[in-house]
Amino acid sequence: MTNRLPEPLVSLIAALSRLPGIGPRSAERLGLHLVQTDPALVAQLAKALVEARERIRTCEECGALTEVSPCGWCTDVGRDATLMCVVERATDILVLEKAGTFRGRYHVLGGRLSPVNGVGPEDLRLGELTRRLARGEVKELVLALGTDVEGDATAHYLAERFGSPTVTVTQLAAGLPAGSGLDFADELTLSRALEGRRPV
Amino acid sequence: MTNRLPEPLVSLIAALSRLPGIGPRSAERLGLHLVQTDPALVAQLAKALVEARERIRTCEECGALTEVSPCGWCTDVGRDATLMCVVERATDILVLEKAGTFRGRYHVLGGRLSPVNGVGPEDLRLGELTRRLARGEVKELVLALGTDVEGDATAHYLAERFGSPTVTVTQLAAGLPAGSGLDFADELTLSRALEGRRPV
Repeated sequence: MTNRLPEPLVSLIAALSRLPGIGPRSAERLGLHLVQTDPALVAQLAKALVEARERIRTCEECGALTEVSPCGWCTDVGRDATLMCVVERATDILVLEKAGTFRGRYHVLGGRLSPVNGVGPEDLRLGELTRRLARGEVKELVLALGTDVEGDATAHYLAERFGSPTVTVTQLAAGLPAGSGLDFADELTLSRALEGRRPV
Repeated sequence: MTNRLPEPLVSLIAALSRLPGIGPRSAERLGLHLVQTDPALVAQLAKALVEARERIRTCEECGALTEVSPCGWCTDVGRDATLMCVVERATDILVLEKAGTFRGRYHVLGGRLSPVNGVGPEDLRLGELTRRLARGEVKELVLALGTDVEGDATAHYLAERFGSPTVTVTQLAAGLPAGSGLDFADELTLSRALEGRRPV
Protein backbone atom coordinates (compact mmCIF):
# COMPACT_ATOMS: atom_id res chain seq x y z
CA MET A 1 0.00 0.00 0.00
CA THR A 2 2.89 2.45 0.46
CA ASN A 3 3.38 2.32 -3.28
CA ARG A 4 3.78 5.96 -4.41
CA LEU A 5 2.67 7.46 -1.11
CA PRO A 6 4.23 10.92 -0.61
CA GLU A 7 7.53 10.71 1.29
CA PRO A 8 6.48 12.58 4.48
CA LEU A 9 3.58 10.16 4.84
CA VAL A 10 5.88 7.16 4.35
CA SER A 11 8.16 8.52 7.12
CA LEU A 12 5.20 9.06 9.44
CA ILE A 13 3.87 5.55 8.84
CA ALA A 14 7.34 4.12 9.49
CA ALA A 15 7.60 6.03 12.78
CA LEU A 16 4.11 4.91 13.85
CA SER A 17 4.77 1.26 13.03
CA ARG A 18 7.68 1.24 15.51
CA LEU A 19 5.19 1.71 18.36
CA PRO A 20 4.22 -1.40 20.35
CA GLY A 21 0.99 -3.04 19.21
CA ILE A 22 0.83 -0.98 16.02
CA GLY A 23 1.25 -3.24 12.99
CA PRO A 24 1.96 -2.03 9.43
CA ARG A 25 -1.77 -1.88 8.64
CA SER A 26 -2.69 0.15 11.71
CA ALA A 27 0.28 2.46 11.16
CA GLU A 28 -0.90 3.10 7.63
CA ARG A 29 -4.49 3.74 8.68
CA LEU A 30 -3.33 6.10 11.44
CA GLY A 31 -0.93 7.93 9.12
CA LEU A 32 -3.58 8.40 6.46
CA HIS A 33 -6.01 9.67 9.07
CA LEU A 34 -3.48 12.08 10.55
CA VAL A 35 -2.54 13.78 7.28
CA GLN A 36 -6.19 14.40 6.52
CA THR A 37 -7.28 15.60 9.96
CA ASP A 38 -7.31 19.07 11.55
CA PRO A 39 -3.69 20.37 11.60
CA ALA A 40 -4.29 21.87 15.06
CA LEU A 41 -5.09 18.44 16.48
CA VAL A 42 -1.94 16.98 14.94
CA ALA A 43 0.16 19.82 16.38
CA GLN A 44 -1.45 19.20 19.76
CA LEU A 45 -0.63 15.49 19.64
CA ALA A 46 2.98 16.23 18.66
CA LYS A 47 3.26 18.71 21.55
CA ALA A 48 1.73 16.25 24.04
CA LEU A 49 4.27 13.64 22.93
CA VAL A 50 7.31 15.84 23.41
CA GLU A 51 6.07 17.39 26.65
CA ALA A 52 5.20 14.07 28.24
CA ARG A 53 8.58 12.63 27.32
CA GLU A 54 10.44 15.68 28.61
CA ARG A 55 8.54 16.12 31.87
CA ILE A 56 8.09 12.53 32.98
CA ARG A 57 10.95 10.68 34.61
CA THR A 58 11.28 7.65 36.86
CA CYS A 59 11.47 8.30 40.59
CA GLU A 60 15.08 7.70 41.69
CA GLU A 61 13.80 6.07 44.88
CA CYS A 62 11.02 3.71 43.86
CA GLY A 63 11.13 3.80 40.05
CA ALA A 64 7.55 5.08 39.56
CA LEU A 65 6.67 7.45 36.71
CA THR A 66 6.66 10.98 38.06
CA GLU A 67 7.24 14.65 37.29
CA VAL A 68 9.21 15.23 40.50
CA SER A 69 11.71 12.84 42.02
CA PRO A 70 11.32 11.48 44.68
CA CYS A 71 7.68 10.95 43.74
CA GLY A 72 4.45 11.58 45.64
CA TRP A 73 4.30 8.00 46.91
CA CYS A 74 7.82 8.16 48.35
CA THR A 75 7.28 11.51 50.07
CA ASP A 76 3.74 10.87 51.37
CA VAL A 77 4.21 10.71 55.15
CA GLY A 78 0.70 9.27 55.47
CA ARG A 79 1.94 5.97 53.99
CA ASP A 80 3.36 3.15 56.06
CA ALA A 81 7.17 3.18 55.67
CA THR A 82 7.54 -0.28 57.23
CA LEU A 83 5.70 -1.90 54.31
CA MET A 84 7.17 -2.05 50.80
CA CYS A 85 5.48 -3.57 47.78
CA VAL A 86 7.76 -4.81 44.98
CA VAL A 87 6.32 -4.72 41.45
CA GLU A 88 7.73 -5.45 38.01
CA ARG A 89 6.68 -2.31 36.15
CA ALA A 90 5.88 1.27 37.05
CA THR A 91 2.36 0.78 35.76
CA ASP A 92 1.70 -2.03 38.23
CA ILE A 93 1.62 0.65 40.93
CA LEU A 94 -1.41 2.19 39.26
CA VAL A 95 -3.25 -1.14 39.27
CA LEU A 96 -2.55 -1.57 42.99
CA GLU A 97 -3.53 2.02 43.74
CA LYS A 98 -6.81 1.43 41.97
CA ALA A 99 -7.48 -1.52 44.29
CA GLY A 100 -6.83 1.05 47.01
CA THR A 101 -5.99 -1.23 49.93
CA PHE A 102 -2.20 -0.96 50.01
CA ARG A 103 -0.91 2.01 52.00
CA GLY A 104 2.85 1.36 52.09
CA ARG A 105 5.76 2.28 49.80
CA TYR A 106 6.51 0.85 46.36
CA HIS A 107 9.58 -0.44 44.58
CA VAL A 108 9.70 -1.03 40.83
CA LEU A 109 12.06 -3.78 39.66
CA GLY A 110 11.89 -2.78 36.01
CA GLY A 111 11.30 -6.37 34.91
CA ARG A 112 11.80 -9.87 36.24
CA LEU A 113 14.43 -12.54 36.04
CA SER A 114 14.30 -14.25 32.67
CA PRO A 115 17.33 -16.34 31.70
CA VAL A 116 15.71 -17.05 28.31
CA ASN A 117 15.63 -13.32 27.51
CA GLY A 118 19.01 -12.67 29.14
CA VAL A 119 17.58 -10.73 32.10
CA GLY A 120 19.67 -11.31 35.23
CA PRO A 121 19.65 -9.72 38.70
CA GLU A 122 22.01 -6.96 37.49
CA ASP A 123 19.29 -5.77 35.05
CA LEU A 124 16.74 -5.14 37.82
CA ARG A 125 16.64 -2.21 40.24
CA LEU A 126 18.10 -4.30 43.07
CA GLY A 127 20.92 -1.92 44.05
CA GLU A 128 18.29 0.72 44.80
CA LEU A 129 16.27 -1.84 46.76
CA THR A 130 19.34 -2.83 48.80
CA ARG A 131 20.00 0.83 49.66
CA ARG A 132 16.39 1.46 50.64
CA LEU A 133 16.25 -1.64 52.86
CA ALA A 134 19.57 -0.69 54.47
CA ARG A 135 17.84 2.32 56.06
CA GLY A 136 16.15 -0.23 58.35
CA GLU A 137 12.60 1.14 58.16
CA VAL A 138 11.06 -1.66 56.10
CA LYS A 139 9.76 -4.65 58.07
CA GLU A 140 7.82 -6.41 55.31
CA LEU A 141 8.56 -6.73 51.62
CA VAL A 142 5.35 -7.65 49.73
CA LEU A 143 6.09 -9.23 46.35
CA ALA A 144 3.39 -8.44 43.77
CA LEU A 145 4.88 -10.17 40.73
CA GLY A 146 3.42 -12.11 37.83
CA THR A 147 2.16 -15.59 38.72
CA ASP A 148 3.98 -17.49 36.00
CA VAL A 149 7.28 -19.38 36.09
CA GLU A 150 9.49 -16.30 35.72
CA GLY A 151 7.50 -14.37 38.32
CA ASP A 152 7.83 -17.28 40.75
CA ALA A 153 11.57 -17.60 40.10
CA THR A 154 12.01 -13.88 40.70
CA ALA A 155 10.00 -14.11 43.92
CA HIS A 156 12.19 -16.94 45.21
CA TYR A 157 15.36 -15.05 44.31
CA LEU A 158 14.17 -11.92 46.11
CA ALA A 159 13.03 -13.87 49.20
CA GLU A 160 16.44 -15.56 49.37
CA ARG A 161 18.40 -12.34 48.90
CA PHE A 162 16.37 -9.84 50.94
CA GLY A 163 14.65 -11.98 53.59
CA SER A 164 16.26 -11.51 57.04
CA PRO A 165 15.32 -11.65 60.73
CA THR A 166 14.18 -8.02 60.43
CA VAL A 167 12.58 -8.16 56.95
CA THR A 168 9.76 -10.61 56.23
CA VAL A 169 9.19 -11.33 52.54
CA THR A 170 5.57 -12.14 51.57
CA GLN A 171 3.76 -12.47 48.30
CA LEU A 172 0.21 -11.85 47.09
CA ALA A 173 -2.20 -14.72 47.67
CA ALA A 174 -2.81 -17.06 44.73
CA GLY A 175 -6.32 -18.38 44.25
CA LEU A 176 -9.64 -17.89 42.52
CA PRO A 177 -10.27 -14.46 41.03
CA ALA A 178 -13.23 -12.58 42.47
CA GLY A 179 -16.55 -12.83 40.66
CA SER A 180 -15.66 -16.04 38.86
CA GLY A 181 -16.73 -19.65 39.27
CA LEU A 182 -14.81 -22.90 39.47
CA ASP A 183 -15.68 -23.68 35.87
CA PHE A 184 -13.57 -20.74 34.63
CA ALA A 185 -10.49 -21.56 36.71
CA ASP A 186 -7.61 -23.45 35.13
CA GLU A 187 -6.00 -26.39 36.91
CA LEU A 188 -2.97 -24.49 38.24
CA THR A 189 -5.16 -21.75 39.70
CA LEU A 190 -7.39 -24.37 41.31
CA SER A 191 -4.51 -26.31 42.84
CA ARG A 192 -2.99 -23.09 44.19
CA ALA A 193 -6.38 -22.06 45.60
CA LEU A 194 -6.59 -25.48 47.31
CA GLU A 195 -3.09 -25.23 48.75
CA GLY A 196 -3.85 -21.77 50.13
CA ARG A 197 -7.27 -22.70 51.59
CA ARG A 198 -8.25 -20.87 54.76
CA PRO A 199 -10.93 -21.25 57.44
CA VAL A 200 -14.10 -19.31 56.64
CA MET B 1 -5.61 3.16 35.50
CA THR B 2 -5.12 6.91 35.03
CA ASN B 3 -5.42 7.20 38.79
CA ARG B 4 -2.52 9.47 39.88
CA LEU B 5 -0.72 9.37 36.56
CA PRO B 6 1.39 12.51 36.07
CA GLU B 7 -0.54 15.22 34.19
CA PRO B 8 1.57 15.33 30.98
CA LEU B 9 1.04 11.59 30.61
CA VAL B 10 -2.71 11.97 31.12
CA SER B 11 -2.77 14.64 28.36
CA LEU B 12 -0.78 12.42 26.03
CA ILE B 13 -3.07 9.44 26.62
CA ALA B 14 -6.11 11.64 25.99
CA ALA B 15 -4.63 12.87 22.69
CA LEU B 16 -3.76 9.31 21.62
CA SER B 17 -7.21 7.96 22.44
CA ARG B 18 -8.75 10.43 19.97
CA LEU B 19 -7.07 8.56 17.10
CA PRO B 20 -9.20 6.10 15.12
CA GLY B 21 -8.90 2.49 16.24
CA ILE B 22 -7.06 3.44 19.44
CA GLY B 23 -9.19 2.61 22.46
CA PRO B 24 -8.53 3.85 26.02
CA ARG B 25 -6.45 0.73 26.83
CA SER B 26 -4.23 1.02 23.74
CA ALA B 27 -3.82 4.77 24.28
CA GLU B 28 -2.65 4.10 27.82
CA ARG B 29 -0.22 1.38 26.76
CA LEU B 30 1.17 3.61 23.99
CA GLY B 31 1.48 6.60 26.31
CA LEU B 32 3.28 4.59 28.98
CA HIS B 33 5.63 3.19 26.35
CA LEU B 34 6.35 6.61 24.87
CA VAL B 35 7.32 8.30 28.13
CA GLN B 36 9.76 5.51 28.88
CA THR B 37 11.35 5.23 25.44
CA ASP B 38 14.32 7.03 23.85
CA PRO B 39 13.52 10.80 23.81
CA ALA B 40 15.10 11.08 20.34
CA LEU B 41 12.58 8.59 18.93
CA VAL B 42 9.70 10.50 20.47
CA ALA B 43 10.99 13.78 19.04
CA GLN B 44 11.32 12.09 15.66
CA LEU B 45 7.74 10.83 15.79
CA ALA B 46 6.47 14.29 16.76
CA LYS B 47 8.42 15.82 13.88
CA ALA B 48 7.15 13.23 11.39
CA LEU B 49 3.58 14.01 12.50
CA VAL B 50 3.86 17.75 12.01
CA GLU B 51 5.83 17.51 8.77
CA ALA B 52 3.47 15.01 7.19
CA ARG B 53 0.47 17.14 8.08
CA GLU B 54 2.09 20.31 6.78
CA ARG B 55 3.47 18.93 3.55
CA ILE B 56 0.68 16.64 2.41
CA ARG B 57 -2.38 18.09 0.69
CA THR B 58 -5.09 16.73 -1.58
CA CYS B 59 -4.57 17.19 -5.32
CA GLU B 60 -6.96 19.92 -6.51
CA GLU B 61 -7.60 17.95 -9.67
CA CYS B 62 -8.18 14.36 -8.63
CA GLY B 63 -8.21 14.53 -4.82
CA ALA B 64 -5.25 12.18 -4.24
CA LEU B 65 -2.83 12.71 -1.35
CA THR B 66 0.20 14.56 -2.68
CA GLU B 67 2.99 17.00 -1.88
CA VAL B 68 2.52 18.95 -5.14
CA SER B 69 -0.83 19.77 -6.72
CA PRO B 70 -1.70 18.69 -9.39
CA CYS B 71 -0.27 15.33 -8.40
CA GLY B 72 2.00 12.90 -10.24
CA TRP B 73 -0.95 10.86 -11.53
CA CYS B 74 -2.64 13.94 -13.03
CA THR B 75 0.52 15.22 -14.74
CA ASP B 76 1.85 11.84 -15.96
CA VAL B 77 1.54 12.11 -19.76
CA GLY B 78 2.15 8.37 -20.01
CA ARG B 79 -1.31 7.70 -18.59
CA ASP B 80 -4.45 7.39 -20.71
CA ALA B 81 -6.42 10.64 -20.39
CA THR B 82 -9.53 9.12 -21.96
CA LEU B 83 -10.00 6.74 -19.03
CA MET B 84 -10.92 7.95 -15.52
CA CYS B 85 -11.37 5.76 -12.48
CA VAL B 86 -13.69 7.07 -9.73
CA VAL B 87 -12.89 5.93 -6.18
CA GLU B 88 -14.31 6.78 -2.78
CA ARG B 89 -11.12 7.56 -0.88
CA ALA B 90 -7.64 8.79 -1.76
CA THR B 91 -6.22 5.55 -0.38
CA ASP B 92 -8.23 3.46 -2.86
CA ILE B 93 -5.87 4.78 -5.56
CA LEU B 94 -2.98 3.03 -3.83
CA VAL B 95 -4.84 -0.29 -3.81
CA LEU B 96 -5.53 0.03 -7.55
CA GLU B 97 -1.94 1.08 -8.27
CA LYS B 98 -0.74 -2.00 -6.45
CA ALA B 99 -2.87 -4.16 -8.76
CA GLY B 100 -1.00 -2.29 -11.49
CA THR B 101 -3.34 -2.81 -14.42
CA PHE B 102 -5.10 0.57 -14.57
CA ARG B 103 -3.23 3.21 -16.56
CA GLY B 104 -5.74 6.08 -16.73
CA ARG B 105 -6.53 9.04 -14.47
CA TYR B 106 -8.19 8.97 -11.06
CA HIS B 107 -10.92 10.94 -9.34
CA VAL B 108 -11.54 10.75 -5.61
CA LEU B 109 -15.14 11.33 -4.49
CA GLY B 110 -14.26 11.77 -0.83
CA GLY B 111 -17.00 9.37 0.26
CA ARG B 112 -20.22 7.94 -1.12
CA LEU B 113 -23.89 8.79 -0.98
CA SER B 114 -25.32 7.82 2.37
CA PRO B 115 -28.71 9.33 3.27
CA VAL B 116 -28.50 7.62 6.69
CA ASN B 117 -25.29 9.52 7.51
CA GLY B 118 -26.49 12.70 5.83
CA VAL B 119 -24.05 12.46 2.92
CA GLY B 120 -25.61 13.89 -0.24
CA PRO B 121 -24.20 14.66 -3.72
CA GLU B 122 -23.09 18.14 -2.52
CA ASP B 123 -20.70 16.50 -0.03
CA LEU B 124 -18.79 14.62 -2.75
CA ARG B 125 -16.22 16.05 -5.17
CA LEU B 126 -18.72 16.16 -8.03
CA GLY B 127 -18.18 19.80 -9.05
CA GLU B 128 -14.52 18.94 -9.75
CA LEU B 129 -15.61 15.84 -11.68
CA THR B 130 -18.03 17.90 -13.79
CA ARG B 131 -15.25 20.39 -14.62
CA ARG B 132 -12.80 17.62 -15.56
CA LEU B 133 -15.33 15.86 -17.78
CA ALA B 134 -16.25 19.16 -19.46
CA ARG B 135 -12.76 19.25 -20.98
CA GLY B 136 -14.00 16.45 -23.25
CA GLU B 137 -10.98 14.15 -22.98
CA VAL B 138 -12.57 11.40 -20.91
CA LYS B 139 -14.41 8.69 -22.88
CA GLU B 140 -14.93 6.15 -20.09
CA LEU B 141 -15.63 6.65 -16.41
CA VAL B 142 -14.76 3.47 -14.47
CA LEU B 143 -16.54 3.31 -11.11
CA ALA B 144 -14.49 1.46 -8.48
CA LEU B 145 -16.78 1.85 -5.47
CA GLY B 146 -17.70 -0.37 -2.55
CA THR B 147 -19.98 -3.27 -3.43
CA ASP B 148 -22.61 -2.70 -0.76
CA VAL B 149 -25.95 -0.90 -0.94
CA GLU B 150 -24.49 2.60 -0.59
CA GLY B 151 -21.77 1.88 -3.14
CA ASP B 152 -24.38 0.62 -5.59
CA ALA B 153 -26.63 3.63 -5.02
CA THR B 154 -23.67 5.96 -5.59
CA ALA B 155 -22.78 4.09 -8.79
CA HIS B 156 -26.32 4.45 -10.12
CA TYR B 157 -26.40 8.14 -9.27
CA LEU B 158 -23.08 8.76 -11.04
CA ALA B 159 -24.11 6.73 -14.12
CA GLU B 160 -27.33 8.75 -14.36
CA ARG B 161 -25.62 12.11 -13.91
CA PHE B 162 -22.40 11.66 -15.89
CA GLY B 163 -23.28 9.04 -18.52
CA SER B 164 -23.69 10.61 -22.00
CA PRO B 165 -23.25 9.72 -25.67
CA THR B 166 -19.57 10.67 -25.32
CA VAL B 167 -18.89 9.26 -21.82
CA THR B 168 -19.51 5.58 -21.07
CA VAL B 169 -19.86 4.77 -17.36
CA THR B 170 -18.66 1.28 -16.33
CA GLN B 171 -18.03 -0.40 -13.01
CA LEU B 172 -15.67 -3.07 -11.73
CA ALA B 173 -16.85 -6.64 -12.29
CA ALA B 174 -18.54 -8.35 -9.34
CA GLY B 175 -17.82 -12.03 -8.81
CA LEU B 176 -15.72 -14.55 -6.99
CA PRO B 177 -12.48 -13.26 -5.47
CA ALA B 178 -9.31 -14.82 -6.85
CA GLY B 179 -7.80 -17.74 -4.99
CA SER B 180 -11.02 -18.65 -3.21
CA GLY B 181 -13.52 -21.48 -3.61
CA LEU B 182 -17.31 -21.54 -3.84
CA ASP B 183 -17.55 -22.64 -0.24
CA PHE B 184 -16.17 -19.29 0.97
CA ALA B 185 -18.46 -17.12 -1.17
CA ASP B 186 -21.61 -15.62 0.35
CA GLU B 187 -24.93 -15.84 -1.49
CA LEU B 188 -24.88 -12.29 -2.87
CA THR B 189 -21.38 -12.74 -4.29
CA LEU B 190 -22.42 -16.03 -5.85
CA SER B 191 -25.57 -14.63 -7.44
CA ARG B 192 -23.60 -11.67 -8.82
CA ALA B 193 -20.95 -14.04 -10.16
CA LEU B 194 -23.71 -16.04 -11.87
CA GLU B 195 -25.31 -12.93 -13.38
CA GLY B 196 -21.97 -11.81 -14.73
CA ARG B 197 -20.95 -15.20 -16.13
CA ARG B 198 -18.84 -15.09 -19.28
CA PRO B 199 -17.73 -17.61 -21.94
CA VAL B 200 -14.44 -19.28 -21.04
